[in-house]
Amino acid sequence: MNQNIKIHYPHSEKIYLQGKRYPFLRVGMRRVSLMPTVTVTDGKETRHDNAPVFIYDTSGPYSDPDADIDLERGLPRLRETWMPERKGTQRYYARHGIVTPEMEYVAIRENMNNEALGISSYITPEFVREEVAAGRAVIPCNHRHPEAEPMIIGDRFLVKINTNIGNSALSSNLEEEVEKAVWSCKWGGDTLMDLSTGSHIHETREHILRNCPVPVGTVPLYQAFEKVNEKIADLSWDVYRDTLIEQCEQGVDYFTIHCGIRLKNVHYALDRLTGMVSRGGSIISSWCSMHQQESFLYTHFDDICDICRRYDVAISLGDGLRPGSIHDANDRAQFAELDTMGELVQRAWDKDVQVFIEGPGHVPLQKIRENVEREQEKCHHAPFYTLGPLVTDIAPGYDHITSAIGAALIGWAGTSMLCYVTPKEHLALPDLQDVRDGIIAYKIAAHAADIAKGHPGAMVRDNALSKARYDFRWLDQFSLSLDPERSQAIYQAANPQQGRYCTMCGPNFCAARISHTLCEEK
Amino acid sequence: MNQNIKIHYPHSEKIYLQGKRYPFLRVGMRRVSLMPTVTVTDGKETRHDNAPVFIYDTSGPYSDPDADIDLERGLPRLRETWMPERKGTQRYYARHGIVTPEMEYVAIRENMNNEALGISSYITPEFVREEVAAGRAVIPCNHRHPEAEPMIIGDRFLVKINTNIGNSALSSNLEEEVEKAVWSCKWGGDTLMDLSTGSHIHETREHILRNCPVPVGTVPLYQAFEKVNEKIADLSWDVYRDTLIEQCEQGVDYFTIHCGIRLKNVHYALDRLTGMVSRGGSIISSWCSMHQQESFLYTHFDDICDICRRYDVAISLGDGLRPGSIHDANDRAQFAELDTMGELVQRAWDKDVQVFIEGPGHVPLQKIRENVEREQEKCHHAPFYTLGPLVTDIAPGYDHITSAIGAALIGWAGTSMLCYVTPKEHLALPDLQDVRDGIIAYKIAAHAADIAKGHPGAMVRDNALSKARYDFRWLDQFSLSLDPERSQAIYQAANPQQGRYCTMCGPNFCAARISHTLCEEK
Repeated sequence: MNQNIKIHYPHSEKIYLQGKRYPFLRVGMRRVSLMPTVTVTDGKETRHDNAPVFIYDTSGPYSDPDADIDLERGLPRLRETWMPERKGTQRYYARHGIVTPEMEYVAIRENMNNEALGISSYITPEFVREEVAAGRAVIPCNHRHPEAEPMIIGDRFLVKINTNIGNSALSSNLEEEVEKAVWSCKWGGDTLMDLSTGSHIHETREHILRNCPVPVGTVPLYQAFEKVNEKIADLSWDVYRDTLIEQCEQGVDYFTIHCGIRLKNVHYALDRLTGMVSRGGSIISSWCSMHQQESFLYTHFDDICDICRRYDVAISLGDGLRPGSIHDANDRAQFAELDTMGELVQRAWDKDVQVFIEGPGHVPLQKIRENVEREQEKCHHAPFYTLGPLVTDIAPGYDHITSAIGAALIGWAGTSMLCYVTPKEHLALPDLQDVRDGIIAYKIAAHAADIAKGHPGAMVRDNALSKARYDFRWLDQFSLSLDPERSQAIYQAANPQQGRYCTMCGPNFCAARISHTLCEEK
Repeated sequence: MNQNIKIHYPHSEKIYLQGKRYPFLRVGMRRVSLMPTVTVTDGKETRHDNAPVFIYDTSGPYSDPDADIDLERGLPRLRETWMPERKGTQRYYARHGIVTPEMEYVAIRENMNNEALGISSYITPEFVREEVAAGRAVIPCNHRHPEAEPMIIGDRFLVKINTNIGNSALSSNLEEEVEKAVWSCKWGGDTLMDLSTGSHIHETREHILRNCPVPVGTVPLYQAFEKVNEKIADLSWDVYRDTLIEQCEQGVDYFTIHCGIRLKNVHYALDRLTGMVSRGGSIISSWCSMHQQESFLYTHFDDICDICRRYDVAISLGDGLRPGSIHDANDRAQFAELDTMGELVQRAWDKDVQVFIEGPGHVPLQKIRENVEREQEKCHHAPFYTLGPLVTDIAPGYDHITSAIGAALIGWAGTSMLCYVTPKEHLALPDLQDVRDGIIAYKIAAHAADIAKGHPGAMVRDNALSKARYDFRWLDQFSLSLDPERSQAIYQAANPQQGRYCTMCGPNFCAARISHTLCEEK
């Protein structure tokens, strides 16, 4: 059953690389085969082979033709047998000099094309261990989510993207959310946040977790809030703690926790143009204000860490006071919260809990770099994970674009993971098409940042695609593109027959064609 | 007839500001009226008025309900009576200390919200004159295109965007192209290039010019190429000169001329990954190579300037050796051409011809700033006009996004005009929807750059929209957005009834709503 959820990428093969330290590791990736380059000199054809390109693959077993997918049963429990007697977190092992199977897995994964092309890379299993030990990178992998393939979040690694799904009180349903989860993995989402706030939160999450090959994050406060019938004043540590444990047991890989909000800082947000726009942040701020005391998330932070450590759930320190407009960017409310986060990072590390930091939101171009530099300074270089940011507020309906601009820039500046924004942001919940549009926009931003940062081998795919374009190898161009289906569909609608030119210029005005002639005459 | 081509912006009024130096000037702009902010304290409603927002308006008479549009007759000849005895170019007048009506017009236009809001601005008519005199800004306005409303291209002014339309041998027709021209003006295109290469080039251009309220650019080589039946070797100065004069007479406002290609530099492009991707550049390079001599565009540059000066047609020095892939960015071929352009800028200025410089193309993030700095240095700060650039090559079908990222960054760095890219770039010719998508992506990039550069009043619209969002004034949010139709349609499909919350969060999880409550309790 459910075989129709399988994923097929054109001219691609699912291959697996074996681990060296841990020979039982099989790291899945996508191998795109290319056609030869054909040149004609004096009427004689010469063919030059083009090396295959390996593409980082987030689709898990869904793109393996041999995998038997059953959404009721769930995915194979990949990591279950890797380290049967787990006692610590990835951070714990890293600090004790132990390279875990997860560390080797991500090292292989980050080096897609390098070994094949002889590109030397600094990303070794030992390097992964060092970065995790130093807290500069996080491998979110709850022991109880063995279906997930390991991935790493850190500024020396490929920039990752997160997608948000989840039903609200007004729309969406359980099946749709699982479909969206697989869809997200198909297009390249590296992690997934289930932000459900409506009914059936537990069941939706269970279904997603058992079928999701990437780490899953949540905001546990949302479910706790449901449990107290959406009465802010009734929220308490007890309800929250029980919710945390429930979600840890289910296998959530990271929690967004808005524990950076301090009673003394709440008033900073009230003078803003757009107050508070974080759901968690506004709830916790209200709670603090109602009770005139520090939030239970702040006062019980060590207890939270103790729970997370047992399962190796990473903490994503939520930015409850993030700006909701470019006007409010980089203000004292935002930066006061960042200072508190810096203190909490150290406390999480002391308990060997992996931690990263959430960031804005809405930030004009000229204030983006300051965000990253300040985060790295105040939060001791824990990975930064930002929503966009949007660089202008005037384009509702196109905020995947306004925010992809900010995302590319902040990724280049050192942000490790980018939370996507869809075209429907600020207006409505995304449908499948919006999710696809949002992911592609963010794959573009993340990839542009990888290139700008000089990630080893990042340009291999660009160069292969551009060569295919210049050679008029249309099918190769499509296979190598972020969205083979859409690029091919656009081209074919306009060009019923593939030629050595494109519709844009027509046969006699084709620059590439004239340029080729010039080369051949030379 | 043709009244159905009229443009209506929601909750907007077409207003005209009068000139002070030249009281006959009527500068059109769009005034968006907003609803009051309603706050409730102790059950009592208080209303605060919100100031209207003025929006730069490229739609000309099409958005004036009183205008009588007739596409056969053409638009009113706005500038015909401004300076009946024209003898010089804008540059000539500027250098002789004369503020022209065009200069006052653009000064008023660039200051949309400043006067109303009491924001001081450096952009005065005298400042415009200084910038034009120094060659740092260009007002493209052929004496024979009096239908066009003056606009300015320079790095101390709002970043502008250009759209390309034009039929190729394979598709598109005359009526469609005029429809696209008006469509481009509706969504905010500041100038328009007619890149037709197929049949009826002259007629298409005539129809566009007579109905176009923005400056129109062309690549005259395309028509010259048609005249020699697309035989590169047969191109000659005579054919080209006649074409230039024909197009000057019609009213083209700026010409892209690939005169930066030198015989000695052509070979640089042949070792590239993607050779030459400029149509004009590849034709001229082939011509040089075939005849083993400098191109007639280079050798006759002074003659070209003499022709352009008579009509005040600006020259856009085309980058025939622009990179066609991020691999080829900032290479010796590109930079050798830029050096030649620097020499030509000085020669154009000596003849009082306005000139600007075209730039790439495909450039990774980390190499963008170098392009602008080098252009400003080598070309004596003549305005820079770039295509994108695309920051990665792997997203055909989404190149409006890959290039909007580069465009925002290069605009911030000092590029004065951004040539748009549509989602169909590299694959097919754009249809109306693609043109709209491309324009909005570029309005976003240009606006983000304006904010980052600190253009006076650039954030007024963002702040007004964000306040509307926080106040749940949905209609105001739509009216202020770059695409009111799309933002409203998305919202209404999901929210049949407008409420003090949105579908994303539902009524009880709305951060803005909780934040308001907190403020009101305070």
